Amino acid sequence: MSLDAVLTRIDDDLPQATDRLLALLRIPSISTDPAYKAECNRAADWLVADLQSLGFDASKRVTQGHPMVVAHYGTDLDGPHLLFYGHYDVQPVDPLALWDRDPFDPQVEETPAGRVIRGRGSSDDKGQLMTFLEACRAWTAEHGSLPCRLTIFLEGEEESGSPSLIPFMQDNAEELHADVALICDTGLFESKTPAIVTMLRGLLGEEVTLHGPNKDLHSGMYGGAAVNPIRVLSRIIAGLHDDTGRITVPGFYDGVQELSDEMRAQWQGLAFDHARFLGDVGLSVPAGEQDRTPLEMLWSRPTCEVNGIWGGYTGDGFKTVLPAQAHAKISFRLVGTQDPFAIREAFRAYVESQLPADCSVEFKGHGNSPAGQMSVANKAFEPARAALTEEWGVAAAYVGCGGSIPIAGYFKTYRNSQVPQRISGFGLPLRR
Amino acid sequence: MSLDAVLTRIDDDLPQATDRLLALLRIPSISTDPAYKAECNRAADWLVADLQSLGFDASKRVTQGHPMVVAHYGTDLDGPHLLFYGHYDVQPVDPLALWDRDPFDPQVEETPAGRVIRGRGSSDDKGQLMTFLEACRAWTAEHGSLPCRLTIFLEGEEESGSPSLIPFMQDNAEELHADVALICDTGLFESKTPAIVTMLRGLLGEEVTLHGPNKDLHSGMYGGAAVNPIRVLSRIIAGLHDDTGRITVPGFYDGVQELSDEMRAQWQGLAFDHARFLGDVGLSVPAGEQDRTPLEMLWSRPTCEVNGIWGGYTGDGFKTVLPAQAHAKISFRLVGTQDPFAIREAFRAYVESQLPADCSVEFKGHGNSPAGQMSVANKAFEPARAALTEEWGVAAAYVGCGGSIPIAGYFKTYRNSQVPQRISGFGLPLRR
Repeated sequence: MSLDAVLTRIDDDLPQATDRLLALLRIPSISTDPAYKAECNRAADWLVADLQSLGFDASKRVTQGHPMVVAHYGTDLDGPHLLFYGHYDVQPVDPLALWDRDPFDPQVEETPAGRVIRGRGSSDDKGQLMTFLEACRAWTAEHGSLPCRLTIFLEGEEESGSPSLIPFMQDNAEELHADVALICDTGLFESKTPAIVTMLRGLLGEEVTLHGPNKDLHSGMYGGAAVNPIRVLSRIIAGLHDDTGRITVPGFYDGVQELSDEMRAQWQGLAFDHARFLGDVGLSVPAGEQDRTPLEMLWSRPTCEVNGIWGGYTGDGFKTVLPAQAHAKISFRLVGTQDPFAIREAFRAYVESQLPADCSVEFKGHGNSPAGQMSVANKAFEPARAALTEEWGVAAAYVGCGGSIPIAGYFKTYRNSQVPQRISGFGLPLRR
Repeated sequence: MSLDAVLTRIDDDLPQATDRLLALLRIPSISTDPAYKAECNRAADWLVADLQSLGFDASKRVTQGHPMVVAHYGTDLDGPHLLFYGHYDVQPVDPLALWDRDPFDPQVEETPAGRVIRGRGSSDDKGQLMTFLEACRAWTAEHGSLPCRLTIFLEGEEESGSPSLIPFMQDNAEELHADVALICDTGLFESKTPAIVTMLRGLLGEEVTLHGPNKDLHSGMYGGAAVNPIRVLSRIIAGLHDDTGRITVPGFYDGVQELSDEMRAQWQGLAFDHARFLGDVGLSVPAGEQDRTPLEMLWSRPTCEVNGIWGGYTGDGFKTVLPAQAHAKISFRLVGTQDPFAIREAFRAYVESQLPADCSVEFKGHGNSPAGQMSVANKAFEPARAALTEEWGVAAAYVGCGGSIPIAGYFKTYRNSQVPQRISGFGLPLRR
């Protein structure tokens, strides 16, 4: 089987492959916003049709949330069974004012950093998953069939905490069992250096609604005497970190491990420009734990961030309201063996311990996934690293990833760790 | 001149007077929201026409913001010149879900507490100002003319900090000079007890926009290392009060005076039900300074409240954004001789002193007015108190007011304190 012929075909087919990706990018499959439910379905349908055209036994599978796309090839073949994971959903696009066009009208643009595709999902994760589909397409065109048993498994809820993922995988454990899982939802280390992820942070999302008075009050009539939920919420948020940047929730650091000397040495060898990393987004001072480098913070340390806050009057002008409620969306990035369920309980208990007598609180969970840690000793790693190194001409790096891919944490414990996973991707990093 | 005949005519005319008020209430003159600019103009036009029908030389007067309505009667008459102040603008109506009908579709309703008008502005201040216009109408109908020189002065920006008020009064100082100013923008002490306000809190509004990264970041890629403006803003807000409820802005309490023993004794004699005051809105514990009663807090102590906060993702679901900005609307109620300009400077300096190196802040002022304190020794007070006491059959109370009426603070120093003011109104208090 000639790999060169496949690579040549991929190059020749680039305009058509780009058109296919742009078609998928035009579908606004925002998973977190119920208004886009039909669009998520449309993206799943598009992928099922494309996979069927490649000879897969592909179908859309119903869940409590957005559908899964499951496609099998060569179920009668011997040899290793690969499972490829990606997701067809994308993040919301607000604030729209920061886009210079409709995020769902993607275009190829020439930029000082080279040719790029601009549009929501062009990297995360539609562009990434289409690289794999295009590889299958070129291989099939050249050789008539794929060389091994393959399952392609695409979800539509990755950007909203993957609530249906584990139930679906448990319900279909036999069908989704594989010898190696390939997860393509990360990026290059930098534009010239490919990377394989060995550490991936987990994620826990919590929405907090704090109730004070039973209705909005006039601050002239009640200000001073009535509790203000915005002030209470602000105090609770302020108390989540101490002066050194550490998170104060009791027990939060249980399961957080220090980096091995080996990994620390490897990371120090990477050409990570800390000043440029922050400088690219207008910052200069690392904001987290004061005894860690930014790279350590991002790849190996847990966080607690406020992703949204609202309450009271937020329109133009002014209204002297003393609001009945205040809200925040708070998320935790997890590392090591931190237990998302234990942290959820500890966080909720912390918030409740901080409430004045007249306030009450409601919580809503938004997904939870433990961190992932891959052993580089696994047989899936060195061949992949060698192939990436050969193609790029630069040694592929073993890296961490500050983001979260819920499936990775679950694969780790899925069927007693039977599924080794190999995570690498081709997205351009945010820092050019 | 028979007062009884006028009072009888007012009673007989109640259905028509109610219809006129409902017509004015149907105009959504929300001053703080630029979208309602034309409606504010429409309310001013409506009032000009009504005043002209009463024989006033009435006109709409242009300002940088919403127009003033100025109406003169009897400029050639001898004797005292009265100035009546009210405002035709209303507060925004959100959250709309808490209304059981369109706030601008007012109706007369029978309730367990008696007959009420429900609709935005029915008390504050369209209902109040119409009581005075209806009094003029009945008097004129009965006697052919009004008994003294009178100026009616209505603004359209009271609910948004009255930015045009002082410039307009300075530009028209001669025209607006009067012997006594009547301000009708307050309520009864309780439904059976009329009241005259002798202390009125001032107001200072500030909008804070805190900038961190130069764009929204992904909390997986930057969380931990990049500063989060929501967290910084929460910490700043949390620091505005100490554990005893006192405000920490340096110099904030300059000019705050303790109550006189006489006023304290009077207030203690009022039938103010502290438990019911809080209980009516679902609260039980006074939230402010721990060494003050709620009534003292409301009428004689300054406050700092957050009236609105927003930043990051606030829609349905979850988005792990680390936002570029966070915003808050913060207001201060002022008492005694607290200087709004000095406090604005001190507040801004405090916020700036709390900023991490990588953050910047923008401020926007939303009006400022000093507190008002009226001397009960003034000759305008006792006749008014006697008249109110006679009509209600209950002694009128001298009270404070936790809200703010910008014009009152200004009258205090206007043309060297030449204008005594008498503030009383007929709105039903929030506590039934």
